[in-house]
Amino acid sequence: MRSSQFFLPTLRENPTEAQIVSHRLMLRAGLVRQTAAGIYAWLPLGFRVLKNIERIVREEQDATGCQEVLMPTIQSADLWKESGRYEAYGKEMLRITDRHEREMLYGPTNEEVITDIFRNGAKSYRDVPALLYHIQWKFRDEVRPRFGVMRGREFLMKDAYSFDLDFAGAKRAYNKMFVAYLRTFARMGLKAIPMAADTGPIGGDLSHEFIILAETGESAVFCDKSFTERDVLSMNIDYESDLEPIVKAWTTDYAATDEKHDAIRFDAIAPERRVEARGIEVGHIFYFGTKYSEPLKAQVQGPDGQNVTLHMGSYGIGVSRLVGAVIEASHDDKGIIWPESVAPFKAGIVNLKVADAACSKLCEDLYAKLTKAKVEVLYDDRDIRAGEKFAEMDLIGLPWQVVVGPRGAAQGKVEFTNRKTGEKQEISAEEALNRLTAA
Amino acid sequence: MRSSQFFLPTLRENPTEAQIVSHRLMLRAGLVRQTAAGIYAWLPLGFRVLKNIERIVREEQDATGCQEVLMPTIQSADLWKESGRYEAYGKEMLRITDRHEREMLYGPTNEEVITDIFRNGAKSYRDVPALLYHIQWKFRDEVRPRFGVMRGREFLMKDAYSFDLDFAGAKRAYNKMFVAYLRTFARMGLKAIPMAADTGPIGGDLSHEFIILAETGESAVFCDKSFTERDVLSMNIDYESDLEPIVKAWTTDYAATDEKHDAIRFDAIAPERRVEARGIEVGHIFYFGTKYSEPLKAQVQGPDGQNVTLHMGSYGIGVSRLVGAVIEASHDDKGIIWPESVAPFKAGIVNLKVADAACSKLCEDLYAKLTKAKVEVLYDDRDIRAGEKFAEMDLIGLPWQVVVGPRGAAQGKVEFTNRKTGEKQEISAEEALNRLTAA
Repeated sequence: MRSSQFFLPTLRENPTEAQIVSHRLMLRAGLVRQTAAGIYAWLPLGFRVLKNIERIVREEQDATGCQEVLMPTIQSADLWKESGRYEAYGKEMLRITDRHEREMLYGPTNEEVITDIFRNGAKSYRDVPALLYHIQWKFRDEVRPRFGVMRGREFLMKDAYSFDLDFAGAKRAYNKMFVAYLRTFARMGLKAIPMAADTGPIGGDLSHEFIILAETGESAVFCDKSFTERDVLSMNIDYESDLEPIVKAWTTDYAATDEKHDAIRFDAIAPERRVEARGIEVGHIFYFGTKYSEPLKAQVQGPDGQNVTLHMGSYGIGVSRLVGAVIEASHDDKGIIWPESVAPFKAGIVNLKVADAACSKLCEDLYAKLTKAKVEVLYDDRDIRAGEKFAEMDLIGLPWQVVVGPRGAAQGKVEFTNRKTGEKQEISAEEALNRLTAA
Repeated sequence: MRSSQFFLPTLRENPTEAQIVSHRLMLRAGLVRQTAAGIYAWLPLGFRVLKNIERIVREEQDATGCQEVLMPTIQSADLWKESGRYEAYGKEMLRITDRHEREMLYGPTNEEVITDIFRNGAKSYRDVPALLYHIQWKFRDEVRPRFGVMRGREFLMKDAYSFDLDFAGAKRAYNKMFVAYLRTFARMGLKAIPMAADTGPIGGDLSHEFIILAETGESAVFCDKSFTERDVLSMNIDYESDLEPIVKAWTTDYAATDEKHDAIRFDAIAPERRVEARGIEVGHIFYFGTKYSEPLKAQVQGPDGQNVTLHMGSYGIGVSRLVGAVIEASHDDKGIIWPESVAPFKAGIVNLKVADAACSKLCEDLYAKLTKAKVEVLYDDRDIRAGEKFAEMDLIGLPWQVVVGPRGAAQGKVEFTNRKTGEKQEISAEEALNRLTAA
């Protein structure tokens, strides 16, 4: 993509409404624009990040055998009356009356709809275990939406639902999601720590929040250092095997948010192993048994011919929230530092002198070759000041910068910069190409 | 995917509420379920088709240089008051009041929001031409939703918007979309015919509908046979070149819907060249000049320093509607016949006797090899009657069926069936593998 053609309205000034760094940077770097309180439009640069995060979430859900569906955003109130949550949900639910005066709502979550779909579609024990997910926009009418996409009203969420004959089956589904979540966040360069959680309005017995560490996190967290040392991506996961040992390994050491903090247990950890940090919730998993299947009569016929009320769980990841969370975890004074897995482009080419024929030729050549090799690259081909180009590249945080000036170009050289470490190397254009096209 | 694990709740009986064939088949084949009047959930099989259609739409939009964004579903009423459409839109607009008593709405279209984003982000003539699109759910509160996803209330639409300094620029954008639309529909195996259209509530001067031919189409259409003979996919399109000759070639011969039909012009065509058929609208493009940019003051500074009010166009494709439209255009008595480009799986393997070791071994082997080669395949590994398996495979319409029985398996043979032509061939399993893995 050429900067001269790319719709990237960056801001020079810090927007006054943004109180946290991710919100500030998302507005400044032209990722999003607020269109109403707590509601955002994703501009081309932000959209690319959102899609990358969504792709990672999807790949890891698919790997567990979870099947993707897509439920609508607008739901009938009827099912919520059946489950008993219609009144209970309160003002956070966006209630709507359609032209025929029917009570509708914008789904804040989908337990009722998926349970309805499954009870109508599944007949016997042969139809379970089942794991279904979707990635869809939700709406929660927060009193005071803030922090940009971190606490917006309309937000993109991945929610999965499991259906099993009994607790043992449900726990297997829970474990699959638990492990998939560890992998999902790790692939985005995040250290996510599972912490036992209250089940809140979704209800149920067994629940974990996944909290990532970020200096600017919303709440205090306390944990054993072991969590920061584990590496789930190097493990070979077979989702059909017993995952309990992995889940156990990730739930035995101490880890708690402020609300559930137990100072006595924490203080029992060796001082150098104690981590006190800030955290951001990015995922939440629940086992809630028959809380919805009971009132909604979601049953299948068991092997013995008797009807069995299904055991269920639900498993959420805040997809749009993660864009903010990644920034909270990875930025500096100059701007965002994208991990390669979610970066909107892998590299940026900075043409320092568009009027210089050799300089532009080298840039064009590199751009053409990278594009051909399907490396996503943003080529700043605009005739503006070099300082402006550098500032924008740092702000938007692409992992690699290839800076081409007239002097270097004359020798076929470029400056190759790692956005994260700041390390700069003068290398040949060919070498830059090789590095960027290498896996 | 194994049928034993796939959530595919098919129906044996024709659902009484379904009046048209695509609605009937989408319910019967387990593609969608209605969750409220005119609102559908996409089950795993239907979701795969929806994603394939969305992918083709996206690839063809991207090819034109159009940049993807994502606008929210919920909009503030303020912008619609600015454009003057808030009152005009009538009851089809789903109006919402949030907890702070602010007037909101579920976007039926996005001219206002995109114009607002662009007027705030673009400053000078250097920021145009610009083409932006998104693929997002829309809501139109139809009085009488019907025909399944063909006329639902919540539907997925691709809408693109162009911004230019003048009519000439806007026409270039219009032509890009015109050609991209021809390619998009052709890739789905559809014959789409552009027909001059009324501009309706969107307003403007220049507009074409893209109508596909289907026996069960919603309206009568009349055109020259030439439209059914053209092949846009074999052309090498350069979107930066002048596309006017292509657009001209596709707009010169007679083509009109019922409403705009001119019997005198039609009758002037040689009788054997006259096509009277039924059609379904799947896309609509508009040039509407300054209709929105004027009231919303969307301007950029021109080269001479003077402000220029932008010329705009909008370009829609009914993504979820296309799933129904493809079925209307391609089905038989037994069920759906998916074109390969949008099929949920390329092939189905039918194991005729799960209890037969050689038969199951051959199936498992073929399934493993196809999966490894990334060919999407549905393997019916269930222990149910062969007749039931055949009926379901025909109903869900995968392009190729590989039928494996004990007798053939003993000789390494399978029956290889083309769903569309019905042609059956007895070939070796290896040959079947080769055919399915060949591009």
